[in-house]
Amino acid sequence: MGIIHHFAGQNGSWDWEGVAVEDYTHKLPGVTTRRFISRQDGSYNLELRYFELAPGASSNLEQHVHEHAVLILRGQGQVLLGDEWHPIKFGDAIFIPTDEIHQFRAAEDDTLGFLCAVLGRHLRTVAHDLAQTVTTG
Amino acid sequence: MGIIHHFAGQNGSWDWEGVAVEDYTHKLPGVTTRRFISRQDGSYNLELRYFELAPGASSNLEQHVHEHAVLILRGQGQVLLGDEWHPIKFGDAIFIPTDEIHQFRAAEDDTLGFLCAVLGRHLRTVAHDLAQTVTTG
Repeated sequence: MGIIHHFAGQNGSWDWEGVAVEDYTHKLPGVTTRRFISRQDGSYNLELRYFELAPGASSNLEQHVHEHAVLILRGQGQVLLGDEWHPIKFGDAIFIPTDEIHQFRAAEDDTLGFLCAVLGRHLRTVAHDLAQTVTTG
Repeated sequence: MGIIHHFAGQNGSWDWEGVAVEDYTHKLPGVTTRRFISRQDGSYNLELRYFELAPGASSNLEQHVHEHAVLILRGQGQVLLGDEWHPIKFGDAIFIPTDEIHQFRAAEDDTLGFLCAVLGRHLRTVAHDLAQTVTTG
């Protein structure tokens, strides 16, 4: 059965019904995540997550096989793609391919909120195998 | 290499740099799509698309194996999940599981814009096989 997580944001604070806040502040100061859609909703294909970075905060510096598809939902900041930082703001769509080094950073005076789509966990290794096949086959 | 499609909307019209408008008006009056991220950007894992429905317009009535993960980005309307219509508006997150009948409809007096994440085309059959394995294994 389909699931709707209604938006319940107010006064600049964004939240959703039935979606827990995951606080990464212990290792990533100023970073929170909400997983709208993932295994807990019965999804095998995808995860859809909302990341929020407080002014000046940064996401984890990452590099991995699975891709990211990102849409900036609020505020502004920068994204690192490879070795270059790029300015980003509301509405920008970002594709992060396999093995691309990436990191997000909020502006010093603005919250950065973005949506990040990624394969479901059990599909990530399959995606790798398929990408290899497509590349070399 | 990563790709950024910068948002280029103005005066209530939403567009993105380097993203073509796909007009379905010939079969679905009032419906347009933009594919931010798909095979044309080098993505093997995912497609991320923006659908816009003019006031009163409806998306295709669909039922298929691959899942959808949707976030409403503007306006309001209704979504059909199975045999029931539900009100939706900005910020609502919707999960459409395998084989769920679904359709989107804009309110009579408002444009409905939403983001839809889906597996890349070559992964959709794999996802089905894996879902079957998980369900029956």
